[in-house]
Amino acid sequence: MVKPKRLLRLLLRIIVLGSTLAAVIIMATSHEKGTFFALSYEAKYSDTPAFKFFVIANAIVTVYAFLVLFIPSESQLWGLVLALDLVFTMLLISSISAALAVAQVGKKGNSSAGWLPVCGQVTKYCNQVTGALVAGFIAIITYIILLLYSIYTFLNPLLGKNG
Amino acid sequence: MVKPKRLLRLLLRIIVLGSTLAAVIIMATSHEKGTFFALSYEAKYSDTPAFKFFVIANAIVTVYAFLVLFIPSESQLWGLVLALDLVFTMLLISSISAALAVAQVGKKGNSSAGWLPVCGQVTKYCNQVTGALVAGFIAIITYIILLLYSIYTFLNPLLGKNG
Repeated sequence: MVKPKRLLRLLLRIIVLGSTLAAVIIMATSHEKGTFFALSYEAKYSDTPAFKFFVIANAIVTVYAFLVLFIPSESQLWGLVLALDLVFTMLLISSISAALAVAQVGKKGNSSAGWLPVCGQVTKYCNQVTGALVAGFIAIITYIILLLYSIYTFLNPLLGKNG
Repeated sequence: MVKPKRLLRLLLRIIVLGSTLAAVIIMATSHEKGTFFALSYEAKYSDTPAFKFFVIANAIVTVYAFLVLFIPSESQLWGLVLALDLVFTMLLISSISAALAVAQVGKKGNSSAGWLPVCGQVTKYCNQVTGALVAGFIAIITYIILLLYSIYTFLNPLLGKNG
């Protein structure tokens, strides 16, 4: 009865690992030369602090998700892993919210602040940022499922012995 | 021995309630008429989706934090409250991250996207937004302390019976 459960958890962790890694790679390779009126410029993720934060947060979680794969299932560390999962879910939520907020300004602009949308000029860059955000979103959803599942399996024996 | 613990938790919940309410009021009342070159405009929180999200998220948590004050301490609802606390902490983190990301662009601009900083023109508005973000930040810190404390007190009797 333990095997399929462990397999499911492993699968979820691999999905998290894959999607955060994809988010990092897609965001970090996003750059495009654009022209705005007579002005030529290059759109890069590293010009936007929110996107840099997104890359750093996803990179941290990628490394963590990779390391967790090597923890044996009998280890005493799973309580700590559960706590860290919670912290890293919050970090991912924070980073994607910040990146989404800036991406929204990039897409729609903000007329009252005089910020023009830039996605018309750098379409490829915008698509790549969107792709990175989608990958980040998949990571978060998977992480929340994993977290609920971990909380359930962590509490179950404790609650079971009392019930 | 129960009384001071309950009092501490009540105090933390009142701080959360007060700071989210302050964040809503400060952000929602922030507006200022500014001139940008020859252009006159009014800076309002509602022009920026990220700030609207911040107000909505904090308003939801304010209502929730208010309702929780009326739950008697013997209630069976505290397990649900713990889960909701977790969800609302994530909501607050998401909303403040989005608002901070846009506020950062407002303060520093983003030269590669051609977005100029606006805080020089609408200083009062910017200060008010900063104030709202500080209030939101206090709410999150308090909520995380409350959450850790709740998890500890929730798990303690379960772990204690097994130990």
